Amino acid sequence: MNIAIYGYGNLGRGVESALAAAPDCRPVGIFTRRPPHTLNSLTDIPIYSASELESFERKIDVLIVCGGSATDLPSLSPALARNFCIVDSFDTHADIPRHFENVDAAARKGDTLCLISAGWDPGLFSVARTLFSAILPSGDDFTFWGRGVSQGHSDAIRRIKGVTDARQYTLPLESALAAAEQGIFPSSAKRGHRRECYVVAEEGADLESIRQEIVTMPNYFSGYKTDVTFITAEQMKAEHSSLPHGGRVIRRGGSGVGGEHFNTALFSLSMGSNPEFTGGVLLAYARALYRMLRRGRRGCLTVLDIAPADLSPLSPEELRRIML
Amino acid sequence: MNIAIYGYGNLGRGVESALAAAPDCRPVGIFTRRPPHTLNSLTDIPIYSASELESFERKIDVLIVCGGSATDLPSLSPALARNFCIVDSFDTHADIPRHFENVDAAARKGDTLCLISAGWDPGLFSVARTLFSAILPSGDDFTFWGRGVSQGHSDAIRRIKGVTDARQYTLPLESALAAAEQGIFPSSAKRGHRRECYVVAEEGADLESIRQEIVTMPNYFSGYKTDVTFITAEQMKAEHSSLPHGGRVIRRGGSGVGGEHFNTALFSLSMGSNPEFTGGVLLAYARALYRMLRRGRRGCLTVLDIAPADLSPLSPEELRRIML
Repeated sequence: MNIAIYGYGNLGRGVESALAAAPDCRPVGIFTRRPPHTLNSLTDIPIYSASELESFERKIDVLIVCGGSATDLPSLSPALARNFCIVDSFDTHADIPRHFENVDAAARKGDTLCLISAGWDPGLFSVARTLFSAILPSGDDFTFWGRGVSQGHSDAIRRIKGVTDARQYTLPLESALAAAEQGIFPSSAKRGHRRECYVVAEEGADLESIRQEIVTMPNYFSGYKTDVTFITAEQMKAEHSSLPHGGRVIRRGGSGVGGEHFNTALFSLSMGSNPEFTGGVLLAYARALYRMLRRGRRGCLTVLDIAPADLSPLSPEELRRIML
Repeated sequence: MNIAIYGYGNLGRGVESALAAAPDCRPVGIFTRRPPHTLNSLTDIPIYSASELESFERKIDVLIVCGGSATDLPSLSPALARNFCIVDSFDTHADIPRHFENVDAAARKGDTLCLISAGWDPGLFSVARTLFSAILPSGDDFTFWGRGVSQGHSDAIRRIKGVTDARQYTLPLESALAAAEQGIFPSSAKRGHRRECYVVAEEGADLESIRQEIVTMPNYFSGYKTDVTFITAEQMKAEHSSLPHGGRVIRRGGSGVGGEHFNTALFSLSMGSNPEFTGGVLLAYARALYRMLRRGRRGCLTVLDIAPADLSPLSPEELRRIML
């Protein structure tokens, strides 16, 4: 299985390190829109200019696209899907149906197979929500995120004029966590979480205007309790350089003819490195995509369309013997 | 989707109550090897003699087989698979590969599609183990069960000569739980758990011989710390009539080129009623089986072959909008 990486930020490096632990995957190259000679890869994977990608069309089985969801992926993924089987981690939940349609149309025109919105949320947490609600239909679920750095949200802040760097932490509201332990879930994600933003601004930038643009940003911050703190580049490097994250999906549901028994399903993640963990998720779904491509599937898929066996390097016989 | 239940013990009743919460499923009937007139269903599903099953062949889309793994399912599932698309909950881990081969051969001869070993372990926990190990390949996992009643193990004891009733509880060893919190997992399931057996014996039965037969039973008890306590039928009814269970799959794995970051994935279940929860699992996998049958799949599958979307009553569009 020949795997290439498009985009070499934190997530691209996460996929690169996951590749090093996957003996069934051969890394073809890393493609960047920056000058390749200015970058060094962590492992010995060659770095190429994105403009060279076309000449690799036959050498790449799956291209893992590591761009930001705010401005990169909405146009980048459909464009690449015409010529490559791509996996992306598009994470603007509200825009997933539209992104799916765009990538699906491109993949069908290009006779490729693509998978969008892999990662942990959307991604593994979506799998947990779907599985739990199918099995405990009479119930409610809730997803808590954090405390952790959201790359998508940090990215969105960084694209604001006058911002040079940003780090956004998502945290469960303490009151919401306490209520969930008693079986009472918040009525919305906005009521379960708050957001902390640490921002480095250009000299002379209008800080109040930046703050306003952050807290009113649709889909990302609007409606959340959001705190914005301006810090120096030195503080950013010293205090905010690691990228941990975590979260949990909880579902409680009744069973029995009268719903008299109470059942709880929980899926939780604690990540020392969000981009490295997410890189591992993207690579596992790239493996599944490759297998489904060879079975003749075309178009766009999501993590909800993937059977667990296709994610594993083990054979069906090994899985039945070891994992079942 | 027309669903029937074969076998009307605790698990059969669990499936029956799950059917009442599934608007897309039509219950056809419950088939029993006991005289049907001696039984009353919880809901208004008719109860038929198992001998009448043949005449329902065209009226049943999926037959959920609720028998014991020790002596029922090894012969029952392959026999039924010749004429019906069955889902079973075969849970003797060591014999799954053989059971798979037998059901697969029968299903291919009969042009049916079957799924074995659904439930929570094997079942949902198998899904978690497969998913977690694909995403965190450099790591270890461990499965803790309990405290809860194992129906398969209780069933196995009940089949011993001289035993009239039995309840088996599986529990994590306290020392193993404490070590796991420090990131150190037991070297085997046997070292992580103990088993408590409460047994009602016939008058005059050889209690020591029953105890010996339990603690030496291969696959079930041999090698585990097992305690056997003989009680009266009255004590059984008063103290051991509910069927709670629980458990967790934990995987810890490093990420990064040097494995320098630590990540933990956890899936845990707490069930007020094991058979009702398991009934919900079997019904969700029956839904997936029905859909895959209509797409032309034949033979035998396991939970590892099923995509999350196929388990849900929601459409792919709804899932992308709501769950992803």
